[in-house]
Amino acid sequence: MLNFKLILNILGRLIVLTGLLMLTSAIVSFYYHSPDLNAILISSAICLVSGFLLHILTRKSDHVPGKKEGYFIVASGWLVISFFGMLPYILSGEIPRITDAFFETMSGFTTTGASILTNIEGMSPGLLYWRSMTQWIGGMGIIVMTIAIIPYLGIGGMQLFVAEVPGFAPDKLHPRIKETAKRLWAIYVLFTVAEIILLYAGEMPLFDAICHSFSTMATGGYSTKNASIAFYDSSYIHYIIILFMFIAGTNFTLAYFTLKGEFKKVIANEEFKVYSIGLIIAAVVIALVLVLVMGFKPSLAFRDGLFQVVSIVTTTGFITADYDQWNLFIKIFILALLFVGGCAGSTGGAMKVGRHLLLFKNTITEFRRIIHPRAIIPVRYNGKVVSPDIMSNILAFFYIYIMIFIFSTLLMIALGLDFNSAIGSVAATLGNIGPGIGQVGPTGNYAQIPEFGKWFLSFLMLVGRLELFTVIILFTKAFWKK
Amino acid sequence: MLNFKLILNILGRLIVLTGLLMLTSAIVSFYYHSPDLNAILISSAICLVSGFLLHILTRKSDHVPGKKEGYFIVASGWLVISFFGMLPYILSGEIPRITDAFFETMSGFTTTGASILTNIEGMSPGLLYWRSMTQWIGGMGIIVMTIAIIPYLGIGGMQLFVAEVPGFAPDKLHPRIKETAKRLWAIYVLFTVAEIILLYAGEMPLFDAICHSFSTMATGGYSTKNASIAFYDSSYIHYIIILFMFIAGTNFTLAYFTLKGEFKKVIANEEFKVYSIGLIIAAVVIALVLVLVMGFKPSLAFRDGLFQVVSIVTTTGFITADYDQWNLFIKIFILALLFVGGCAGSTGGAMKVGRHLLLFKNTITEFRRIIHPRAIIPVRYNGKVVSPDIMSNILAFFYIYIMIFIFSTLLMIALGLDFNSAIGSVAATLGNIGPGIGQVGPTGNYAQIPEFGKWFLSFLMLVGRLELFTVIILFTKAFWKK
Repeated sequence: MLNFKLILNILGRLIVLTGLLMLTSAIVSFYYHSPDLNAILISSAICLVSGFLLHILTRKSDHVPGKKEGYFIVASGWLVISFFGMLPYILSGEIPRITDAFFETMSGFTTTGASILTNIEGMSPGLLYWRSMTQWIGGMGIIVMTIAIIPYLGIGGMQLFVAEVPGFAPDKLHPRIKETAKRLWAIYVLFTVAEIILLYAGEMPLFDAICHSFSTMATGGYSTKNASIAFYDSSYIHYIIILFMFIAGTNFTLAYFTLKGEFKKVIANEEFKVYSIGLIIAAVVIALVLVLVMGFKPSLAFRDGLFQVVSIVTTTGFITADYDQWNLFIKIFILALLFVGGCAGSTGGAMKVGRHLLLFKNTITEFRRIIHPRAIIPVRYNGKVVSPDIMSNILAFFYIYIMIFIFSTLLMIALGLDFNSAIGSVAATLGNIGPGIGQVGPTGNYAQIPEFGKWFLSFLMLVGRLELFTVIILFTKAFWKK
Repeated sequence: MLNFKLILNILGRLIVLTGLLMLTSAIVSFYYHSPDLNAILISSAICLVSGFLLHILTRKSDHVPGKKEGYFIVASGWLVISFFGMLPYILSGEIPRITDAFFETMSGFTTTGASILTNIEGMSPGLLYWRSMTQWIGGMGIIVMTIAIIPYLGIGGMQLFVAEVPGFAPDKLHPRIKETAKRLWAIYVLFTVAEIILLYAGEMPLFDAICHSFSTMATGGYSTKNASIAFYDSSYIHYIIILFMFIAGTNFTLAYFTLKGEFKKVIANEEFKVYSIGLIIAAVVIALVLVLVMGFKPSLAFRDGLFQVVSIVTTTGFITADYDQWNLFIKIFILALLFVGGCAGSTGGAMKVGRHLLLFKNTITEFRRIIHPRAIIPVRYNGKVVSPDIMSNILAFFYIYIMIFIFSTLLMIALGLDFNSAIGSVAATLGNIGPGIGQVGPTGNYAQIPEFGKWFLSFLMLVGRLELFTVIILFTKAFWKK
């Protein structure tokens, strides 16, 4: 049986934390004399009071969370802070409908960046700041989750990707993990500050620089402008954001090694290699098509190609060009990229480069196994043998991902969406990207999705963000048995 | 090193066999005073002479084929008989272009049923008969291949599905396998004759009855009519064809057990259960949408729904209704069905129900494994434990299938196809179905696909038909080493 007292205790702490971080939005609101100040203050107060009450009422719980509690806390945690996090939107009246406010908040905390807003620039500064901040908070949550919780729960091979982190032990929550998480958070904050400074130096207004940096490091994609990054007609700004999206899409443990001077570990990392080279190849393919078929100028073609590729693969979702207007080949190429995802251990979503790499390696190995059926030929990753159990789990992850994609697309079509928009909306929310193709493409948004569809897509964001298993396992008989 | 003398010797025999079977078309042509008689006779003579020469020139080879020869013979066999089998089309001048004639023949021998013909009824009877016969021959080849060769080569879990066949031994070509193959062929012939009689009894002309029965039992789908089965305005004919498509899509070893009176084995077969119930559910879903959303009469909705579902899932590709005119939900539902496939050990193509069943079971098991990480929880199929090696191979099969689908779709788009046609043509050829959606939908054909596209799709038919691995392995380094 789950220890609900313990679960509620931890959820209470999360709600208090949300309320505290919300207060920083109140400061922004106050500074800009923004009309949303009262709404933010009241929302924050609601969070602080309810969270605190929940926490002290369950204080007597001194157990350590087990595995099952782990799943439940992660899934319900994201859900609960999304319910509390949407209060400023509703109380200010700027997003009056619960469905829309919840969608926008879940999209924030899951670092998806899918939006129901039709006029972003019409929002008050305090709320715009809070919107980007939800992504930044989500990114922090994901770092802790991928380093500490998910590998310990044994999901989707994550134990493989973070195996080298000091303090990591796959079979228990090691006490040093807290220390590790703090260091990784410090790196996250450091990069965010660096991006703010560099964007500000490129003449982006400070407010925009802060909001965009929050969204970049979380690979979220919320912008303060209707046109997203296309608003800024500056190569410098575009390339700076490309750089930081790239960083945000790498395994944070590599950033940790880089700062410690252990470059060898970074260079030897196979996932990082495939990720970097893959991004360049994809950008060059798109740039070539733009130049040769659509007659773009080479420099623009490369910059726009690279920006969109990095933005989609890292699952950020910023936009500098309307790729829906590019030719069909590029559009469908980008559709395929929606499934790739950043590196494991980054704030990026979707399937992750590392999993693709292992699936590819396993396939190659399978051919060798067929030819030599008596030999035992393992898959290797970063020089180490990958256990068949982990491989099987990654393969199951791939199968579930595809099945969810197919059934969800059918559901969105049944709700009335056209084929492209159905595919696009499902791939972009399940992969935590944001913009997809069709109606929810780079210049579109999720405003016109039917009510039920918005709730369903919010659910997909959560499922995708928590590596599928964490959420789906709550619906299995095995989880609730005994 | 491959024993090419042995390979050529066997290929010679296959070409002679093709020539002999082609002679039966000459009889049909003679009977109908068809203008294609000479072309068929000359083609047959070319086959007999070249095959015989190849055979006797390599006669001294007394080796038994090894595994590597096995792969090479299977893949090159289908290729070679397609080159010889296209001669009647070219020499008669009725399909003058090599690309088209090869496409049509490969589509026949792989039991795909994708056609470049724009006016089927304009073809001479001898050629129409040959066209259906290529599918029937292909079906015979597949039975032998799935029972004897593929499991022995250790591909895609096929050893699992035919494990109960007498004479089957996964690690060597057992002498009794020849006996088994003969029995299964007898069943194949028996069912074909039964269908001919039943269709003829339903007032289908004998010629049409023979050709359609050939196409049905092979799950091919070539028709003698432009409108396919929709030409016949008879519930009886539609339901008879549904019945035989259903039979052709089941594991032939089950038919063998049925005729031996071992019904228990049939009823206990998990794949058969999922296949039967799944078909009914899919048909009911489509019928409900047709009735409730599109206002069809229930009896027609169920018949048309069931016919199309059985036709697509068994990978036959006969048509009684233009599903491209049904609503988007059904269209995309049918698109998803293009990936399902018949039972393993049938003449059906695509992924196969058994593989989906195992992938699903492995996923469920994975959740139990996560909760109990120290327990060893195997996947079971028909009451027996499935070895992790087989499971890994099936998972690799799934991954390769999806990757081939994605890259081929991008290629077809680059060749100028629209999105739907690109998806449809790739899914329908890789799955050996025939009609897809878009330009190659139920009322369309492959005539307008660019030259290179036709060759590429022919290649996909071969790859799909031979369970992916058999063809792709020829392009690996491991295959050619030593």
